[in-house]
This record gives sequence, structure tokens and C-alpha cells, in this order.
Amino acid sequence: MTGMHPQRWYELLSKERDVVLEPEGPDDPGIDYAVVWKQPPGLLKRLPNLKVIFSIGAGVDHILADPELPDVPIVRVVAQNLTQHMVEYVAWRVLDHHRQGMLYRAQQRDKIWYEPLQPAAESVSVGIMGLGALGQAAAKTLKAIGFSINGWSRREHRMEGVRSFSGETGLTPFLNATDILVVLLPLTPATEGIIDYSVLERLRSDGPLGGPCLVNAGRGQLQRETDILRALDDGTLKEASLDVFEREPLARTSPLWVHPRVFVTPHAAATSDPAHLVQPMLAQMAAFERGEKLENLVDRKAGY
Amino acid sequence: MTGMHPQRWYELLSKERDVVLEPEGPDDPGIDYAVVWKQPPGLLKRLPNLKVIFSIGAGVDHILADPELPDVPIVRVVAQNLTQHMVEYVAWRVLDHHRQGMLYRAQQRDKIWYEPLQPAAESVSVGIMGLGALGQAAAKTLKAIGFSINGWSRREHRMEGVRSFSGETGLTPFLNATDILVVLLPLTPATEGIIDYSVLERLRSDGPLGGPCLVNAGRGQLQRETDILRALDDGTLKEASLDVFEREPLARTSPLWVHPRVFVTPHAAATSDPAHLVQPMLAQMAAFERGEKLENLVDRKAGY
Repeated sequence: MTGMHPQRWYELLSKERDVVLEPEGPDDPGIDYAVVWKQPPGLLKRLPNLKVIFSIGAGVDHILADPELPDVPIVRVVAQNLTQHMVEYVAWRVLDHHRQGMLYRAQQRDKIWYEPLQPAAESVSVGIMGLGALGQAAAKTLKAIGFSINGWSRREHRMEGVRSFSGETGLTPFLNATDILVVLLPLTPATEGIIDYSVLERLRSDGPLGGPCLVNAGRGQLQRETDILRALDDGTLKEASLDVFEREPLARTSPLWVHPRVFVTPHAAATSDPAHLVQPMLAQMAAFERGEKLENLVDRKAGY
Repeated sequence: MTGMHPQRWYELLSKERDVVLEPEGPDDPGIDYAVVWKQPPGLLKRLPNLKVIFSIGAGVDHILADPELPDVPIVRVVAQNLTQHMVEYVAWRVLDHHRQGMLYRAQQRDKIWYEPLQPAAESVSVGIMGLGALGQAAAKTLKAIGFSINGWSRREHRMEGVRSFSGETGLTPFLNATDILVVLLPLTPATEGIIDYSVLERLRSDGPLGGPCLVNAGRGQLQRETDILRALDDGTLKEASLDVFEREPLARTSPLWVHPRVFVTPHAAATSDPAHLVQPMLAQMAAFERGEKLENLVDRKAGY
């Protein structure tokens, strides 16, 4: 396995399997499964018996970035715990934009007792880009809170209670009908840099919040940060909550840190917690060895 | 009718009824219904034919404060729009405490890229004091987001998926099991000042958030602000979101405005919007005249 903080993963995986931490030596014929986060390019190629790659994260762009990736199935992590954390983050940020948290915090600083108009959630359209496991779960909870939900995905997805759009032709009507844009897309060559000025300027400008808001909880490379800053400063975009950035950690020189209408979190929306993720991985390995089908397989051609 | 901003109420009520704005003259025999917010004491007594009093707010303490209140039924407002706004506010504040908004905003100010431990919602117990229409709706939505819910009420209320406590004997076990206390109680002689130091110090101190949090969206007179400040400063209470205050507007000299772990909003959690509330009132008047029973009646002895 590879990963940023491997010790805890190692301990938990070791309960059922022999584990080698980031093999550095010669080709290792004894390794059947790789559990990885941003593996060094070429490393997996050196494992001749590798049968399955398990991603520690919901996104797999960090795995597919390896130009010498061996041709074995890749399983993404889909865990209730990870999904739950993402839903919490999205609900939290959408509510903070909807209930005017930035305005109220500024008012408190100036001791201003003033109640602006407050639209009900129902009149606010939250548009979710990316309707995979995370996007669907977020849509369901935002709907339960009371928001109106639009969804956009590359391939058509239908969800009850969600106004669905898809593909290139669906993008403009989706954006035109959206007050708070929530980005939960996978990072692929087709989505890299997709959140640019031309997307932000198509968001609904005359909605009940006085301007559209952006929440990116997907990947930093989906966004063009210079475009986000331009859109904030020329009034195209009202506010943004960014959990991910083109380069992480975010440089101390980035103007995003100090922008009064940007809320920054350190890629913390939904962290992969080994205590909740190891058991499903071990169960998949055992099922695979019984000849059962792997679940949550990555479509390598689509890139997610 | 009486009220702070009566014009819009007047317009909407006038579509079906003759309306007199805060009658100041002699006794008015033509008035059957009073629609009120903090009426001048003694005013309603001067209406000899008064049949029903309608409250503009969910709470009725402002009506019952009149020592010469005539003995006619009092109807509280229960409107989907008001309930919806309260649910949004409670979900927003609970998520902000749970997802460590105050910490992240402080980190952003200092450009700190650091991810603290983040407990899942399920491991956080939200305790709702007051299980009327608002408390029940808040419980349902917080449950849908993923929180564990405790409920406390004076009289026993059972709700599916909510650990319920009631009465004086239920208060300590309820508080001991609560990480985020949400106050949605009616203001009555029995609840005035109930949120004091002895309540705050019984909240769970070893929960997953590193200390308990308070959200008061009920009435300011439920809380003792000197006790809240003491509890914040001696470490008994971690953070507070206060929408209501002992005296409103909150005085510019109040230390609550500048406390780094207090979030202040100007009694804005759920404002009574006449566009949504007048129609149910008119419908109740018509039903009453057809001899049907009034709904959402206030129990004057209990005070809510």
C-alpha cells in the first residue's frame, strides 16, 4: 500500500492480510492487491501478480495519473462514512450561503442589528455537478432540508425530485437555473478546469440570494482560481466555499485566503478514515477470491 | 390588529375582512378577531365582541404578558414557511458547530492549512429542548442529516428515532447526553431563565466536539446571558449561536457581540412572513364561523 499516513491503514489491513508498505525493492511477486493514494508512477507496474487496485479516495485521478498503470480493475472507495462527511460539508456550506453567514458575521463585527430579506430554501436552486454516489447523497439531504435541486452529469442520471440535465447541451440550462453551484465532479481530462469564468457567468444572476455562489468539494484542478477571483470581484459571483485548490496546500500568497467572500477549508470536506474504509476493502478482496464481482469499479476510459 | 410592520398584514387581511389598525378610540363593538404582536396591555379588553386572538409569532408570551387579557381562545401561528425557516436556521447552526466553522474561520484568518479531527454527525448528540411543532421539525431534519437526537419537553413527547426525556427528572440525563443544545422552548413563568449556568454545566463535556455548544432560537428571556459568558470563559461551554437576547436589539455594549466563540443573529431565525401566514388565519376565521374547531390553540394555563 501507499498513502500519506499509512500507519493506521497498515494496522487495520494487517489484521486479515500481509501488508507491504510502498514496496521499493525489486518486483514483488507476492502482492495481489494495491491500496493506494498517489502512488509513485511506475510502482504498480512492478507487481507482476497484481489483481486489483483499491483507491483510498472517492476520486481516482491520483491513480490514473500514472502513465504506466497496469491493466487491472480499479475499485473506488464508496463508504457510508465518507459519503456522510461529504453530505455534511455540502449541507453546511449551502446553508451558510443561503442563510447569509458571511453578511451576518460582518454585521456582528460592526455590531449591526439588521435582518435582511431571507428567502426560504425552496426558492433557492442548488445545482449539483456530478451525480455519482456523493452527488446523489448530497441531493437527497439538501432536498430533505427544503432546497430545490438541479443535477448535471456527463451521462444522463435521473433522480426523483431532482431536475436533471446532462451532457454539453444540458450545461447552459442547468447553470442558468442554478443559484448555488456544488461541484462534486470527478477529475478527468474532460473536466479539468471546467469551473471557469464562462461557467460562473452562466449561473442565475437574478436569483433570491442577490447573486450566485460556488461550493467546490471535488478536486482543485476542476477550477480556474484566477477566473473565480475575477468573477467575485466583478460581481458575477457572490460568494465561494472552496475545500480544494489547484495546488494544495494553498500557498500563503494566494488571494483566496484573504478574500472577504471566500471561505477556505484545507481539503477537509470528507477525509478517508481507515477505521471505516478498511473493512469494506477486506470484504471486497474476500468476495473477489470467492469469484464474486467487484463493486464500484472505475471506468478507466471515462476516467472515473 | 397590532404589530411592528402592520402595513403588509393589513393589505393581505383586507382582501377578505375589514381591518382596524390598533384601535385607539373607545370600545369597538365591531371587532371579532385580533391579530397581534405585543399588543399594548389593556387594549384587547376594550373589544367587547372579541372572539379569537391570533398570534403573529409561534410563541405567545408577548400576548400573555397582558395582565388584562380577555378570556377568549388564542391561536398560535403554525405555518409551513415559519417552520421551514426555523429548521434551516437550526440545521445551519448545528452544522457550523459540528463542522468547526469558528475554528476554520480563525485558521483562514491566519492562513493555517490544518485539518482537525472531524467526528461524523452520528457521533454527535443534538439535544432539542422543546418538542412542539418547531422542535419536532428540527429533530426530523437533523436526523436526516445524520445527527443523533435527544429531545426534552415538559410533558412527555415520543418521536421515532429521538431519545426522549421529559419533566424535571428527565432534565439531567438529557443534558448529560447532549453535545449541542438547541433551545426551542416557549417562554413561560416556568421556563424563564432556564438556560443558566447549572444547565450548561450539565451538558456532556467529554463529547466528540471537545466541549458542548448552545443554540438558542427560542426566546431571549429563556437564557441568562451572564451565565452563558461565564460558561464560555471558564471552558464549560465551547461555543454559542444566539438568535435571541434578554433585551432586543442587543445593546452595543454587550460582550456577546465581540466574543470570539459567540455567533449573533438579530432574532432572524424564522421571521413571520405575512405572505405565508395570512391565508391560514383567514381560513381559520372562516372555519370558526362554520362552527368548526380552532386549531393550534394555546393552553393558557401552561403558558404556550
